[in-house]
Amino acid sequence: MKHKTSKNFIAACPVPLADYPNILLAHGGGGKLMRQLIDKIFVASFENDLLEKLEDGAVFSVGNQRLAFTTDSYVVRPIFFPGGDIGTLAVNGTVNDLAMCGARPLYLSAGFILEEGLPMETLWRVTQSMKHAAEAAGVQVVTGDTKVVERKNGDEILINTSGIGIVEHGLDISPAAIQAGDAVLLNGDIGRHGIAIMAQRQGFAFENTIESDCADLSGLVGKLLQEQIEIRCLRDLTRGGLGAVLVEIAEAARLKIHLAGDTIPVCEAVRGACEMLGLDPLYVANEGRFAVFVSSKDAERALHVMRDHPLGRGAARIGGVVEKSSAQVTLKSEIGATRIVDMPRDEQLPRIC
Amino acid sequence: MKHKTSKNFIAACPVPLADYPNILLAHGGGGKLMRQLIDKIFVASFENDLLEKLEDGAVFSVGNQRLAFTTDSYVVRPIFFPGGDIGTLAVNGTVNDLAMCGARPLYLSAGFILEEGLPMETLWRVTQSMKHAAEAAGVQVVTGDTKVVERKNGDEILINTSGIGIVEHGLDISPAAIQAGDAVLLNGDIGRHGIAIMAQRQGFAFENTIESDCADLSGLVGKLLQEQIEIRCLRDLTRGGLGAVLVEIAEAARLKIHLAGDTIPVCEAVRGACEMLGLDPLYVANEGRFAVFVSSKDAERALHVMRDHPLGRGAARIGGVVEKSSAQVTLKSEIGATRIVDMPRDEQLPRIC
Repeated sequence: MKHKTSKNFIAACPVPLADYPNILLAHGGGGKLMRQLIDKIFVASFENDLLEKLEDGAVFSVGNQRLAFTTDSYVVRPIFFPGGDIGTLAVNGTVNDLAMCGARPLYLSAGFILEEGLPMETLWRVTQSMKHAAEAAGVQVVTGDTKVVERKNGDEILINTSGIGIVEHGLDISPAAIQAGDAVLLNGDIGRHGIAIMAQRQGFAFENTIESDCADLSGLVGKLLQEQIEIRCLRDLTRGGLGAVLVEIAEAARLKIHLAGDTIPVCEAVRGACEMLGLDPLYVANEGRFAVFVSSKDAERALHVMRDHPLGRGAARIGGVVEKSSAQVTLKSEIGATRIVDMPRDEQLPRIC
Repeated sequence: MKHKTSKNFIAACPVPLADYPNILLAHGGGGKLMRQLIDKIFVASFENDLLEKLEDGAVFSVGNQRLAFTTDSYVVRPIFFPGGDIGTLAVNGTVNDLAMCGARPLYLSAGFILEEGLPMETLWRVTQSMKHAAEAAGVQVVTGDTKVVERKNGDEILINTSGIGIVEHGLDISPAAIQAGDAVLLNGDIGRHGIAIMAQRQGFAFENTIESDCADLSGLVGKLLQEQIEIRCLRDLTRGGLGAVLVEIAEAARLKIHLAGDTIPVCEAVRGACEMLGLDPLYVANEGRFAVFVSSKDAERALHVMRDHPLGRGAARIGGVVEKSSAQVTLKSEIGATRIVDMPRDEQLPRIC
């Protein structure tokens, strides 16, 4: 039987090859270049309404059931870090992507790519972490796959988890649902995950160990839904941090978002580390923090619900949506100056999640 | 907030670390060592009924809907080969895993892990192949993720696809459903994919180029279901080939399966290549071949249905289930000798899928 090869019918590559002949680290960094790659390669190839929304997952109906479906690969280095490891991250990250769709997570898949030479005990520690994280989040890992690739450094472990959740409410949770006047809330202080990874990787010793904020957010989101908070949009603050996520939302729905800098919680240790390293906490990755846009009338009630939950003790109202017109995120600093929050070109640190 | 680290509560590793301190290529090879890894690491960590079945995917109900969910990572080298590429494989492989659950494939996720330095055009060719394969199979890629890892050789592209399908019949398709007397059918000649990859990788030039059999099997399986063939079990013959798959099924359901060697189709070119390379076609990987166990009364009708489909022209009845007692696969060779078909310890070739 004769098969057509892909060569016969590929269209011209829409990324300008003279400017970007090769993949750069920044193409995975959550900033402008990643956005270009997604738009010009993936969306252009797979064009469909669900993918084009560029949400944390796809929501669709099967029969009379609304489902959410999401995928994420985890490549973090080091594998083990204060507050978690690649296994905790692989479960919580995908559970959180489902939660950000407003779904209750049900089932996960786990695809392992292991390097020849990886210590067996490393794999076991990681799968045990996944087990405990899955139990805590109330999800089951029901299907899996393992591939082994030839030895390079003998320490590689890459994990993909995909997840299925069930949407049990009638809300449309997406940037398109955001209204002028909506409040922007945050469930806690930002920057811990990125700084924890960087400190571990570089061998920096800060006075107090900064632990990753890696956590399962589905319980807290479930609580907000249960309390009938009018949620408009949810997004976890992973690659690119709070800054990149808000710019992305502003661009997706053409929103002017204004932030009050002095209301954005950053703990002393993270602030100090960022100053020392020349990083802006606004763009540092988190693994247990999310932004939620809610109707202004529900903002105070939502804050109470969040602060009642262990993962929302440090919740804060950090700004609001000024109007729906053109995309812009502004931030009024503690000393009173207003600046535009831009999308970073690339990630401040590679392989953070 | 204080997080527990995985170190505090991991159980002892159940793989004997003295024998297997590190991951070997064979742990991903579809043979005995992979089976040990799956049982002792993954099933032991994630213990649940769905995973323990070790099928090509998990089948469960959400509301009143039966769904199938599966995942697979693709690491094949070379990326482009006669008859397809890693992109075609990533779509068809996961579509086939859903088909083997008796499901109609609906949605795929795509997780890309790219190496810094990968040519942009390579990525584009691969996503275009995925686009065409997805269109042909009638599935949509609705959610995705991209990670970039530091440069090593500058040519790495790893793809995970997970898939959701819908089960629209009442059959229980699994090794447990197989009965004594059932017939074992095959949809075509075996070994093309593995030999195509190896020839390309090693630069062997055979007289006629052998193309991979990579194909979407969901249409053919759908046809069998539509014709109400009493399907007992379906399995695609990927890693480990026909031999490993049948031994796995025999062990899962304690079956004696007998094969007539002269009925197993192998094309001349593959047979010649295998002889030259010292490979047994029984254990060579395929990407468009499957075994189907059907009730004996439906065997002839099933063969007709298969031969009416472009991907089943070479369908054959290759054996049957002698009894349900102990696990054993035997093969009567063309010269009349009967031998036991054993599970390979490892794969004949690494990174074949």
